[in-house]
Amino acid sequence: MSKTAVVLLSGGIDSATCLGIAKDQGFDIVAISFDYNQRHKVELEAAKLILQHYGITKHYIFNIGLFQKIGGSALTDTAVPVPQSLHVSDIGEDIPVTYVPARNMVFLSYALGVAEQNGADDIFIGVNALDYSGYPDCRPEFIESFAKTANLAIKSGVQGSQIQIHTPLIKLTKSEIISRGNSLGVPYHLTHSCYSPTEEGLACRHCDACLLRRQGFEDAGLVDPTRYHHAA
Amino acid sequence: MSKTAVVLLSGGIDSATCLGIAKDQGFDIVAISFDYNQRHKVELEAAKLILQHYGITKHYIFNIGLFQKIGGSALTDTAVPVPQSLHVSDIGEDIPVTYVPARNMVFLSYALGVAEQNGADDIFIGVNALDYSGYPDCRPEFIESFAKTANLAIKSGVQGSQIQIHTPLIKLTKSEIISRGNSLGVPYHLTHSCYSPTEEGLACRHCDACLLRRQGFEDAGLVDPTRYHHAA
Repeated sequence: MSKTAVVLLSGGIDSATCLGIAKDQGFDIVAISFDYNQRHKVELEAAKLILQHYGITKHYIFNIGLFQKIGGSALTDTAVPVPQSLHVSDIGEDIPVTYVPARNMVFLSYALGVAEQNGADDIFIGVNALDYSGYPDCRPEFIESFAKTANLAIKSGVQGSQIQIHTPLIKLTKSEIISRGNSLGVPYHLTHSCYSPTEEGLACRHCDACLLRRQGFEDAGLVDPTRYHHAA
Repeated sequence: MSKTAVVLLSGGIDSATCLGIAKDQGFDIVAISFDYNQRHKVELEAAKLILQHYGITKHYIFNIGLFQKIGGSALTDTAVPVPQSLHVSDIGEDIPVTYVPARNMVFLSYALGVAEQNGADDIFIGVNALDYSGYPDCRPEFIESFAKTANLAIKSGVQGSQIQIHTPLIKLTKSEIISRGNSLGVPYHLTHSCYSPTEEGLACRHCDACLLRRQGFEDAGLVDPTRYHHAA
């Protein structure tokens, strides 16, 4: 019997690649996604299409009112605009306004509950410490600490199982992620990255997520299959 | 200006006492409660009444579909009956079926997001390691580890603030908790403990929560103001 892994799937490049890696390692997949009233909710549709592509049927979508209720992030608070830039080099090194307080703490806590209930010891999350250096909850020290806490939190941890948090992308550049996923056949044409898409789901081209995606494909020498709203 | 604390308020004895202690320490309170489709949802009404009593107006109630979706706990899964016993001594020492996977991990993660957004460094949670020795996420080692992880997860932690998780009840017996709260004027007549209340909100008298509450008041030499469904 193969082992089960819980994969956090937002519908973007990183989580889709993470899913491809978990599949490649032979895990049975339980996917989880979050509807937190993010501006780019179209990514949830992307997540569903990606799972369909892989024939994965176990998918939890959780509604989380927290981030919208507390506000303060450009991703969930319409009062905070999503920054737009021309080049990757314009993206600041500070913690970006797209930071969502405690997001990965909350997401991983849900994953932990799902993992325990599904008898899974493995959780995959596509965090990346390079492109998102400003997000504290994408750093290896946070992930390692979370894993320790997780094993103290749950019944199976106390009884001897060890939850492992897999972060296969944490030290890769965007172009390395895309190259890796491309070699595994990850369906990037189904993924969504843009923080500020049009109503039809077209990508804006100039938010941080679009910039990093475009640059990543370019650096990997691959064609970005995204449909962008604005001309090049 | 006084400091703000986030208090997790279920509406039971422990969290109400915790709130009373935080108030007594002079904190401004932001309360949070969770609707996770618990059988004993009447506790949310209790939480509101307790806050009214204290004149606290900042109250977040979060809907969490997680626990019901993953099932497996007597508190959220109608397929798992709530155990009934005659005496406190009948309560087993194993992890009880009322254990909810990852519950305090999820609750504290929400508290963390609320704390960061409200500029609070202090979180109060009424966990207790004695009466609920079976719950791994009520032990001091879990709480300490969570605090470490929390400070790595959030922007304010990285920027130098230190989130503190206060667990003033963690080593108290139920009767010590009740005595303490009584001396602080905690409105126990407004609290709710029963895991398996009647539709009118009357307590069942025989679930673990009722047993511990009744014994606690008895040991403290105080009258339990709860309205019970069954006669003594």
